[in-house]
Amino acid sequence: MSKFVSKRNISFMIKEIFDSKFLTDFDYYSRHNEKMFDMVIDAALKLAVKLMYPVLEKMDRNPPVLENGEVKVHKAVKKIMKEFGQGGWIASGFSEAHGGDQIPLIIRGTASFIFAASNYSATAYPELTAGAAELITSFGSKELIDTYVPKMLDGKWQGTMALTEPQAGSSLSDIITTAYPDENGHYKIKGVKTFISAGDHDGVENVIHLMLAKIENAPPGAKGISLFVVPKKRLDKKGHLVSNDITVASIYHKLGYRGAPAAELSMGEKDDCQGWLVGEENKGLIHMFQMMNDARILVGLASCAIASAAYYAALEYTEKRPQGRPVTQKDPLTKQIPIIEHADVKRMLLFQKSVVEGSLSLILQCCMYADLMKVSKGEEKEKYALLLDLLTPVAKAFPSEQGIFSTSTAIQCFGGYGYCEDFPVEQYLRDVRIHAIHEGTTGIQGMDLLGRKMVMKNGKAALLFMEEVKQTIKTAKEATELEYFAKELGKAMKELEKVAGFLFNVAGEKGIDVYLSDATLFLEFYSLIVISWQWLIQGIAAQKALSGNCSKKDTHFYNGKLFTMNYFFRYELPKAYSLAARLMDNDNLTVNMKTAYFKD
Amino acid sequence: MSKFVSKRNISFMIKEIFDSKFLTDFDYYSRHNEKMFDMVIDAALKLAVKLMYPVLEKMDRNPPVLENGEVKVHKAVKKIMKEFGQGGWIASGFSEAHGGDQIPLIIRGTASFIFAASNYSATAYPELTAGAAELITSFGSKELIDTYVPKMLDGKWQGTMALTEPQAGSSLSDIITTAYPDENGHYKIKGVKTFISAGDHDGVENVIHLMLAKIENAPPGAKGISLFVVPKKRLDKKGHLVSNDITVASIYHKLGYRGAPAAELSMGEKDDCQGWLVGEENKGLIHMFQMMNDARILVGLASCAIASAAYYAALEYTEKRPQGRPVTQKDPLTKQIPIIEHADVKRMLLFQKSVVEGSLSLILQCCMYADLMKVSKGEEKEKYALLLDLLTPVAKAFPSEQGIFSTSTAIQCFGGYGYCEDFPVEQYLRDVRIHAIHEGTTGIQGMDLLGRKMVMKNGKAALLFMEEVKQTIKTAKEATELEYFAKELGKAMKELEKVAGFLFNVAGEKGIDVYLSDATLFLEFYSLIVISWQWLIQGIAAQKALSGNCSKKDTHFYNGKLFTMNYFFRYELPKAYSLAARLMDNDNLTVNMKTAYFKD
Repeated sequence: MSKFVSKRNISFMIKEIFDSKFLTDFDYYSRHNEKMFDMVIDAALKLAVKLMYPVLEKMDRNPPVLENGEVKVHKAVKKIMKEFGQGGWIASGFSEAHGGDQIPLIIRGTASFIFAASNYSATAYPELTAGAAELITSFGSKELIDTYVPKMLDGKWQGTMALTEPQAGSSLSDIITTAYPDENGHYKIKGVKTFISAGDHDGVENVIHLMLAKIENAPPGAKGISLFVVPKKRLDKKGHLVSNDITVASIYHKLGYRGAPAAELSMGEKDDCQGWLVGEENKGLIHMFQMMNDARILVGLASCAIASAAYYAALEYTEKRPQGRPVTQKDPLTKQIPIIEHADVKRMLLFQKSVVEGSLSLILQCCMYADLMKVSKGEEKEKYALLLDLLTPVAKAFPSEQGIFSTSTAIQCFGGYGYCEDFPVEQYLRDVRIHAIHEGTTGIQGMDLLGRKMVMKNGKAALLFMEEVKQTIKTAKEATELEYFAKELGKAMKELEKVAGFLFNVAGEKGIDVYLSDATLFLEFYSLIVISWQWLIQGIAAQKALSGNCSKKDTHFYNGKLFTMNYFFRYELPKAYSLAARLMDNDNLTVNMKTAYFKD
Repeated sequence: MSKFVSKRNISFMIKEIFDSKFLTDFDYYSRHNEKMFDMVIDAALKLAVKLMYPVLEKMDRNPPVLENGEVKVHKAVKKIMKEFGQGGWIASGFSEAHGGDQIPLIIRGTASFIFAASNYSATAYPELTAGAAELITSFGSKELIDTYVPKMLDGKWQGTMALTEPQAGSSLSDIITTAYPDENGHYKIKGVKTFISAGDHDGVENVIHLMLAKIENAPPGAKGISLFVVPKKRLDKKGHLVSNDITVASIYHKLGYRGAPAAELSMGEKDDCQGWLVGEENKGLIHMFQMMNDARILVGLASCAIASAAYYAALEYTEKRPQGRPVTQKDPLTKQIPIIEHADVKRMLLFQKSVVEGSLSLILQCCMYADLMKVSKGEEKEKYALLLDLLTPVAKAFPSEQGIFSTSTAIQCFGGYGYCEDFPVEQYLRDVRIHAIHEGTTGIQGMDLLGRKMVMKNGKAALLFMEEVKQTIKTAKEATELEYFAKELGKAMKELEKVAGFLFNVAGEKGIDVYLSDATLFLEFYSLIVISWQWLIQGIAAQKALSGNCSKKDTHFYNGKLFTMNYFFRYELPKAYSLAARLMDNDNLTVNMKTAYFKD
């Protein structure tokens, strides 16, 4: 059994960085205490080690198959859904009123991180179910809630997000799945959905799709989209499950994420597929985005979880693998050294560590904002909501993009062995690659950040973020050892102001299309600053701990934190300036480039 | 059949950029003329389309298996080896004295590019055979040449490079395979070699390993390594092929490059494996490096070939796939546009195009240096040899590293479909990933560039390179449209001088270990400048063509070149400055980082 997460780092995050126990001072979380949080984490680790990790490779090598119209998945899935249901994991974040435990997201999210690091595909089943059930509890009628939610939280019924259609991938406003009102007050659904994760399988009794569709004669575009519950099997009058006329047209053979099926579904081929409206007519996209925003954070979390597993695999290997000698040692008769002692290998490991722990820190920061949002009011509630909104595209895109490089770097640490199935890192690269695509591609995240989040409420979120960073810089300045980092982050924030100012001018003078043309790079630029901020927060805590009484083990741990912060500031943050130079170039290159010029 | 290379770009390269027909003025190449070069390229394209591309996916899905001690490969391999042998492809670069055609490397290399773009795994068989045969002709006795080379050039016998051992990957000085002199003047070989590409298979009658081993009692380290021919089957006195006691211990299941086996071989388990010395005793590593340097160029070529195939797949898809509307078009009733019209998609395509065509240009530049080296003498010969030596690590590492990002970006252009086996791009990412590892990892290339090539002969190669670039800048300055690019490249060259000067100081003051600690990043930095230089060369040719009479089609082509040069200078070259800042940081971070700090 290889290590896939660091327990010490998790404790550092939820105790030393985010002091999550203070949440229990709020009424909503008051049933919990720190010990209970520890127990949740321990239980998650045990479940991951016992149930998830052992089938990581097996689920990859034995992907789902479509047989006689039904998707057969690895037999472990049934067990996992049962354990996640009966163990209360699917429900744990729900309110007590809905059968949950009201566990703060920062704790539940940490558990998700552990699960995804042990076996990402396996987590898709319960996590999607939790997200779908939450959507029903938020906007569905009591009848819908009573019918579906308990079975979902129990792990007996699978939940899905059914958005994408073959002719409308990223462009949701172009979906054509249609809902025809019928005499019973519900709808007949007709259409095709594609890439539906866990869209059908034999590990559960039923599959509940939270599906976007347009009610017949609804307004065109996004304003005419509604949200429906469309089950694979519906209940007949006697309470028996009967077919609801959904056909699995095909499943995809994928590069990775092979433990979970992505299905193409066809609804209403026999004109007998029923759907139930969730929330208001034509408000489907708004409703769905509640689940979507959570899903984006989860995607970021899963990305850094996979990168974490790859990092610890690489770390273990580089510590054991002897190869070569110090650069200054020419005598071939001396012993070879473990490759971790080569500077370039240390660089590769520091890069991975900086991505994994920097990303996790940002995501838990987002979870903390969500937890605080839940228990606060007015101004304050708005503040947390805005910060969460602003940072969601970063929390989704940075880990998923850097996760590709990070897992690829883990392969590089293994050399030729990393390219082979004998070690898990090649699977980690395949698994992580989906995350820059699903739940909104990186391009979509860039447009969301620059086109929406940076400018919403007159830039209020962006200003709140600057305040947060200023606060961190101020604290850092109190320790002389951190002065350099405080200064560098301050400098980067100035550069951000400059770039943002430049781009706002562009928007005014040249139009929104030029303004948004390098949105993906703006996101990359912004992310480097955001992650540096998270590293400075970690550096402050590490420096403080080191100045007190510290065991040898802890001294090593905190020094590791300081070196990794150093790495991020000295190897990664400088990239922000190249990106800034690019973003303030006036050429409009990609707007002017013509399709015809690509020919030949 | 999808496009995998641009015929137009190939013609641009070998005619407009490198004017390869002028090589026929030299005696050695005088049997050829431009028309014959064209025929070679056309024949390569036909072979790639007819024989290689159709089995690209099939060879991936049906990888080699080890059955009863022999490796079974896809049946296409036999056909491919036969065609490459009988068609004269394996021999084409050889001198006439050795049964070849004396085709310049720039033409033969272009054919290799075409083959690798159509099906990389398939090309490994003949290309490795050509390299191994060349090593025998260069250093082997007449007897060895007569025994092995004709069968190899005919495609009947496979050639391999057998260097790596389980305990000695990148550290060749630690190999322990031993050659014991016997009474017949040859050697008994004992040892294990691993990751041997095409190390055994049933597509040929015999496999000829060019193997590194240490003669019993040879000096320790690299100075005691010799080169041997070790055949799978040797000829007995009657001229029959009999077993030479090599056992296939296992073959690897790999992420990609699945069409060719990587085998672990055990020599001399029955004490009956014979080897024949090639060249001088204890000079094996020096001899092998002739093949190794060619192999590194070929790896770079294959990387940009795979990236080329991925790019054209992405281009085709993005031109056909409608999705979304212009940013300024809010009306959902208007038609969706092909995604190639979105700025971010154009950026992704320009990135791929800049990597593919920039890398190809550099590699053909290296081929041209090799061709000129062959036919020149004294000072001039040395100049070409030094430039080739200097640029080889760049030609290997830039395409293989950027090839990962480029193919990954091709996947991104496809969205979810790119993650599925329905399109070839996921295979291209898997296939290309090996290239940053085999024939010397990127880390090894960085050490080679900074530790050896930059300083050899008192930096003479580095100075010659500066002269080459200065010449290009001078030419560029003659066209006002290119002034910006001439200036930017000049600026980057100044930065290079600064960085190199800084690092040479570090070497003196802090020692060679600190000097080399960021060698990989120096390679990245240097590569950005080298590729910018190649783009400026292309820009000069395009600008010149545009100022004359140009068909509409050609106008588009040359504008494509100018936009892509623009892209590289404005999006990629700026990254050199972040890298320079990093390289001139004084922290020695990766040297000081301790293994213990990674724990926990």
